[in-house]
Amino acid sequence: MTTEVGKLLASIQQPADLKLLDKERLPELCNELRQFIIDVTSFKPGHLGASLGVVELAVALHYVYNTPYDRLIWDVGHQAYAHKILTGRRDLFHTNRSYKGISGFPRREESEYDAFGTGHSSTSISAALGMALASGFLKETDRNHVAIIGDGSMSAGMALEGLNNAGVSKSNLLVILNDNGIAIDKNVGAIKEYLTDIVTSQTYNKLKDRVWLMFGGKSTYGKNSRAIIKQVGNALKSTIFRRSNLFEAFNFRYFGPVDGHDVIRLTQLLSDLKNIPGPKLLHVITKKGKGFSFAEKDQTTFHAPGQFDRNTGSLISNQCEGTPPKYQDVFGKTILELASQNDKIVAITPAMPTGCSLTYMMEKMPERVFDVGIAEQHAVTFSAGLAAGGMVPYCNIYSSFMQRAYDQVIHDVALQKLPVIFCLDRGGLVGEDGATHHGAYDLAYFNAIPNMIISSPINEEELRNLMFTAQSIKIGPFVIRYPRGNGVMTEWETPFKYLETGKGSMVSDGDDLAILTIGHVGNYIKTVKERLIGSGITAAHYNMLFLKPIDEDILHQVFRKFRKVITVEDGTVNGGLGSTVIGFMTNNNYKATVVRLGIPDRFIEHGSIEELQRECGFDTDGILKAVFDLFPDKK
Amino acid sequence: MTTEVGKLLASIQQPADLKLLDKERLPELCNELRQFIIDVTSFKPGHLGASLGVVELAVALHYVYNTPYDRLIWDVGHQAYAHKILTGRRDLFHTNRSYKGISGFPRREESEYDAFGTGHSSTSISAALGMALASGFLKETDRNHVAIIGDGSMSAGMALEGLNNAGVSKSNLLVILNDNGIAIDKNVGAIKEYLTDIVTSQTYNKLKDRVWLMFGGKSTYGKNSRAIIKQVGNALKSTIFRRSNLFEAFNFRYFGPVDGHDVIRLTQLLSDLKNIPGPKLLHVITKKGKGFSFAEKDQTTFHAPGQFDRNTGSLISNQCEGTPPKYQDVFGKTILELASQNDKIVAITPAMPTGCSLTYMMEKMPERVFDVGIAEQHAVTFSAGLAAGGMVPYCNIYSSFMQRAYDQVIHDVALQKLPVIFCLDRGGLVGEDGATHHGAYDLAYFNAIPNMIISSPINEEELRNLMFTAQSIKIGPFVIRYPRGNGVMTEWETPFKYLETGKGSMVSDGDDLAILTIGHVGNYIKTVKERLIGSGITAAHYNMLFLKPIDEDILHQVFRKFRKVITVEDGTVNGGLGSTVIGFMTNNNYKATVVRLGIPDRFIEHGSIEELQRECGFDTDGILKAVFDLFPDKK
Repeated sequence: MTTEVGKLLASIQQPADLKLLDKERLPELCNELRQFIIDVTSFKPGHLGASLGVVELAVALHYVYNTPYDRLIWDVGHQAYAHKILTGRRDLFHTNRSYKGISGFPRREESEYDAFGTGHSSTSISAALGMALASGFLKETDRNHVAIIGDGSMSAGMALEGLNNAGVSKSNLLVILNDNGIAIDKNVGAIKEYLTDIVTSQTYNKLKDRVWLMFGGKSTYGKNSRAIIKQVGNALKSTIFRRSNLFEAFNFRYFGPVDGHDVIRLTQLLSDLKNIPGPKLLHVITKKGKGFSFAEKDQTTFHAPGQFDRNTGSLISNQCEGTPPKYQDVFGKTILELASQNDKIVAITPAMPTGCSLTYMMEKMPERVFDVGIAEQHAVTFSAGLAAGGMVPYCNIYSSFMQRAYDQVIHDVALQKLPVIFCLDRGGLVGEDGATHHGAYDLAYFNAIPNMIISSPINEEELRNLMFTAQSIKIGPFVIRYPRGNGVMTEWETPFKYLETGKGSMVSDGDDLAILTIGHVGNYIKTVKERLIGSGITAAHYNMLFLKPIDEDILHQVFRKFRKVITVEDGTVNGGLGSTVIGFMTNNNYKATVVRLGIPDRFIEHGSIEELQRECGFDTDGILKAVFDLFPDKK
Repeated sequence: MTTEVGKLLASIQQPADLKLLDKERLPELCNELRQFIIDVTSFKPGHLGASLGVVELAVALHYVYNTPYDRLIWDVGHQAYAHKILTGRRDLFHTNRSYKGISGFPRREESEYDAFGTGHSSTSISAALGMALASGFLKETDRNHVAIIGDGSMSAGMALEGLNNAGVSKSNLLVILNDNGIAIDKNVGAIKEYLTDIVTSQTYNKLKDRVWLMFGGKSTYGKNSRAIIKQVGNALKSTIFRRSNLFEAFNFRYFGPVDGHDVIRLTQLLSDLKNIPGPKLLHVITKKGKGFSFAEKDQTTFHAPGQFDRNTGSLISNQCEGTPPKYQDVFGKTILELASQNDKIVAITPAMPTGCSLTYMMEKMPERVFDVGIAEQHAVTFSAGLAAGGMVPYCNIYSSFMQRAYDQVIHDVALQKLPVIFCLDRGGLVGEDGATHHGAYDLAYFNAIPNMIISSPINEEELRNLMFTAQSIKIGPFVIRYPRGNGVMTEWETPFKYLETGKGSMVSDGDDLAILTIGHVGNYIKTVKERLIGSGITAAHYNMLFLKPIDEDILHQVFRKFRKVITVEDGTVNGGLGSTVIGFMTNNNYKATVVRLGIPDRFIEHGSIEELQRECGFDTDGILKAVFDLFPDKK
């Protein structure tokens, strides 16, 4: 696939080239950048919408600031495509999110322009403040630090902790609030309403023209600019103060809101703000998907649309007829089904209703689904409160984001044995989103917590039955962990069946070794066994289903019969299924050779799930190799 | 020790008895309560200061609300002594924080009046909101929900996430902001300054009398009270609006500030607020240590003073001459020493400068110590920013609070291999603070993260040398974990020595079994070996020092020589040292009987550290028993 690069864009290898352009040409460059991003992401899927929204911002920032000496920190980072393209990675951009290609997020290892790696939301203010204060210690007083953070990310506690500390710190930190009114789904919460109120306020809008004029019209780069800025600052202060007290309460000077798609004005504004000391917040209004009509219209779909036709806006599906459903959809449809039968059931998501498919339930019973915004900590303790109040909460959180609520799971749920049902989406390797997003540690970190029930289904039916079972036992926290992507059953809407807690099953018998699996990876064993036919090796396969409590009957059976055991899990080998199995073996004084397959003890980068599982050695080939390694004479 | 109970207090077994009192007698009751708390905590150490500060609030809440049907959630919960005493636990209060006694925090298992267990800060708003919404679903529309939260806790991200969600939820939630201007140390941050500004504002104070009058003077319980309240509300709104926009931005109706020690007015106010729908915040000004002059004067010391003489205010020390120092002081003095030699060193604490002894460094070089408030997430990523900016940050966080920043350690530090030095204070069982505060899971949850160096010193000298080593290698995150309490060396200020990463040592040799330890518990083995003399069993003792990377040379040596191995750690057996050792054994196909001692897979309650370690079976007796169990014929 060839991608045309606009003339201006072609001339820019580094921000230094950008600075050579006349300011008046920046809109043209933005247009070329936008077209390039749309072109490439149409065949190389990525985070389109957010990146289109900040094209002008990225151009203005690199035009005004002395990057990489000046540091830009892109919160979440999936919006940083223009930034990447402008900083030496245009020719690599077609490798975006591919195995061994560039990352879909800023990474310090990838470029000196990526001042701080991001992926999870709301880290940028804290990181930028740390770097800004470091610069102070190192006497680099001319170094600027800018955190660019979305309105969705701003509602997470961590961002507010950052503001609270930055507000009393001696730094010239600039926070740019990139307000597009949407996270992946529609943004929610009081702060969001507050921001909307600022933007739509009639009172404010009357004053806006005047402010605009002062910022856009009079400001120059001449010797009077400081005085003018002061004047502008005061004007802003008096006119907007009443409505900007949220940030003023955090001791930030507030500027805005301004049009985030007027690149020339943005450059002026950023130049001016450089001269204003202390912590500042610039409120910039942008449109997610800007400049690509289909993405502007359907912002949630075009957040990360997969492949699409850039002329028609239609998505290109690689799914054939009869493909099994995504686990996400099984969750979404099943919870709706269960909630129809049990009126105590409620569902909680921290800003991922579409991603986790709670949208089905949201449509039918909106009052029983709580999208609490990007706020995993609150999501968990809020769920604990609902459970303490007698409801049956299903709290759906992506595995890697659950790391944010680890304390709340221990302290508010497990310690009090509250029956919160945790649906842990995207457990295991997630593919193209890479190291920041893999759900690699959940089995290990939950395993360490007392009172937890931890399960992981092998297929859609087990997911449904676990969801059904969880609401009926209610003895404490119940984790149901499943991966990103498709299951294995086309006919999956089977009648609900109660599953005994802590009971696995033997899927198939064998004589020479036992293979113990948990979760979706158990499906690989069928192929492994087929490929073992004729080798003289037969393997018994056990689907453990529960990590905690582990099925000790099965383990006794296994260790009494087999001297060779392989465990397979889509999670770190440190602390999950394999570790539990050898713990049991040790405690019961069994002796066997146990090989533990899973994610090794290093960070795994991005690529397709298949490529990454191969790299980790627990795809079909990897498991087969492990088997033959145990039987060297049979190779 | 006998404790006199005042006459009024003696008449109250349950809140129902309290409601029988004339309102005018409440101040007298508060006085008796306060004296009782001072009396009991003088010999039975507890959280004195915070509890004295909310005596009137506790009385007023139980006087006005229909507890336990109405739900009170005490944030952090160490201030809930008056609440406990008023709710059937007066006669048990002398067992506060003792082994098998009542807990120092609210616990659902302990009393139906404890609506939600607390211990860590800033959970109350989320929990109360969950319960309030549950009541809505269950048609209990008359049920009230009150979260009582301190100004220190209010700055943590989780509380702000709660506000952000509560502000757009349909509930009558009342948040009481208990503003005493102090956490354990002086409260810090922009929100704190904002609150101070409200309280001290001249403009505001002029209006205050009028507001007071309306609240205190005119309000009655008669038929006009609703109208009056509305009027008061509007008056408040117009007069205070300008200064209360922080909470208004979160869509809360703001009331206050009011004197938190005027119990009669508090009861009026709370009655009135019951009738105002929607999320409300009442800003109450209290004094930590109120009514006990010594505690009012030195609030940090009297936060949890240990035993004291109630007449002189002098602390009663049980430490003899020549007692080894606390690990905390070794940390505090050593970082000052290191920072004097290396000007890149900075220190970060989330609101625990006294508890972790950063006060030594704060005094000498205040600009290099950052107390970021109760904000562990920010503390970690802020430290990551400092490291990325070229500084050498020592981030000191209590083990159980580090759970709050698990994602930040993975995502912002470990993934980027940033050389943040984590000084993990209060690792292991902490004693009287109990289940919420034990540092039980840290070895396990850190062990699962790639790139981490995890160490734990056996004594003061090793702590110093680890701290020295960490700043010189800077290859990634370096964890130094140590317990609450005293070390073992009186002469501990030895010259710094570089320690090789991942190297442990043999402390003493033996023939029959190997005992592998990490951390302070290694000191027990000397006694164990002494007590083995004459038994015919000799044990080799290895101090592993590093959990990760584990010393494989030692492990090869151990498994080549010994068939019986005991591991000892002051942490959960799930995932820590013992698990790592058996993982190594399995991977290397060694066969041995390994007994793993540590904290079992259940929550451990409160008591002295000695009592709890005995319960868990890894005190000297427990280790000795494990040895003899391995040699049944030698018993």
